[in-house]
Amino acid sequence: MRVFVPFDVTDPKTRLTSVLSPSERSAFARCMRRDVVRAIRAAGGDPELIATESIDSDAPVSVDDRPLSVAVNARLDVVKGPAAVIVADLAIVTPGAIEQLFEVDGDVVLAPGRGGGTNAIVARHPDFRVDYHDASIRDHRAIAEEVGASVTEIDSYRLATDVDEPADLAEVLLHGQGEAVEWVRERGFELAVEGGRVGVER
Amino acid sequence: MRVFVPFDVTDPKTRLTSVLSPSERSAFARCMRRDVVRAIRAAGGDPELIATESIDSDAPVSVDDRPLSVAVNARLDVVKGPAAVIVADLAIVTPGAIEQLFEVDGDVVLAPGRGGGTNAIVARHPDFRVDYHDASIRDHRAIAEEVGASVTEIDSYRLATDVDEPADLAEVLLHGQGEAVEWVRERGFELAVEGGRVGVER
Repeated sequence: MRVFVPFDVTDPKTRLTSVLSPSERSAFARCMRRDVVRAIRAAGGDPELIATESIDSDAPVSVDDRPLSVAVNARLDVVKGPAAVIVADLAIVTPGAIEQLFEVDGDVVLAPGRGGGTNAIVARHPDFRVDYHDASIRDHRAIAEEVGASVTEIDSYRLATDVDEPADLAEVLLHGQGEAVEWVRERGFELAVEGGRVGVER
Repeated sequence: MRVFVPFDVTDPKTRLTSVLSPSERSAFARCMRRDVVRAIRAAGGDPELIATESIDSDAPVSVDDRPLSVAVNARLDVVKGPAAVIVADLAIVTPGAIEQLFEVDGDVVLAPGRGGGTNAIVARHPDFRVDYHDASIRDHRAIAEEVGASVTEIDSYRLATDVDEPADLAEVLLHGQGEAVEWVRERGFELAVEGGRVGVER
């Protein structure tokens, strides 16, 4: 299956500014992207990056600096057969979670992200298009309904956990298995208890 | 399978104080607990509440005001055969998520909660005991290893999402299917976009 992986090269992970320098944010985003690409391949998918600028990668890259939904829909307009879209910041994703995404039936398969996002999609219906604004999971349910596509939602914590905020680094430390967790550990982050949930300190 | 569901009657959900009155917090906690009990039964389990005070419930209740881990371990000390422990604030849980918990192999099955918690456990090893402090998922992995029990972890967003903080109410609105989401809607909460992730407003 063709799997599009959008990736913001320019100023990634801005909500980690309080804990990471700009160059660290870039390096961390790159580690997460590599983990995602590796997991997609291990699950039998063919990853293709959609990057906002030219980058080095062992996966095919096309450069597209249009807004995310426009760039993704331009691919869905022309792709033949099923295609998937998976966000690049799933630092705790595993091949098993992506296999589940690929294997489940449905014209449209949605993996919700925390806070209303849509972290992974499989589109097997020719008229389905994405809209990543705000509570996109709701929009994607509605778009599928409008085009008459059946929807299946995936119940996966590993697919739901995109890394945006400092507290999310705790999830990486607790559940990561790839390059991203190595990077976070090497940068001196460790778990810290803050009230009920666990955060990080450096 | 016997399924213990600990429930704090006295002052539940204190981290929702900024958005709910004390009586609302109690009412909401009760709705979530009922959803959890219903899902456990639909998945074929036999729920038993461990409550800090006497309460009305159609499930069996035993009162135990000792700390959570002590109260749970007192049950694990005497139970014959496998037993499960599921927290009472899984407002978006479904029977399917709990079936997966029951069905997967492993001397100890752990469902991580967001922020390092352990939201559901199946214990099939006689020496496994719980310790719910801080990053309990790490402790539970370690305890299982100490007693020589194999561990399987469940990848479920619905089991990972316990409701503690106002932002968690957005997850209830987006993914809830039972009494808790009805309650939240009736109290006038709706989704609100706050930066990248979706929150709630009332």
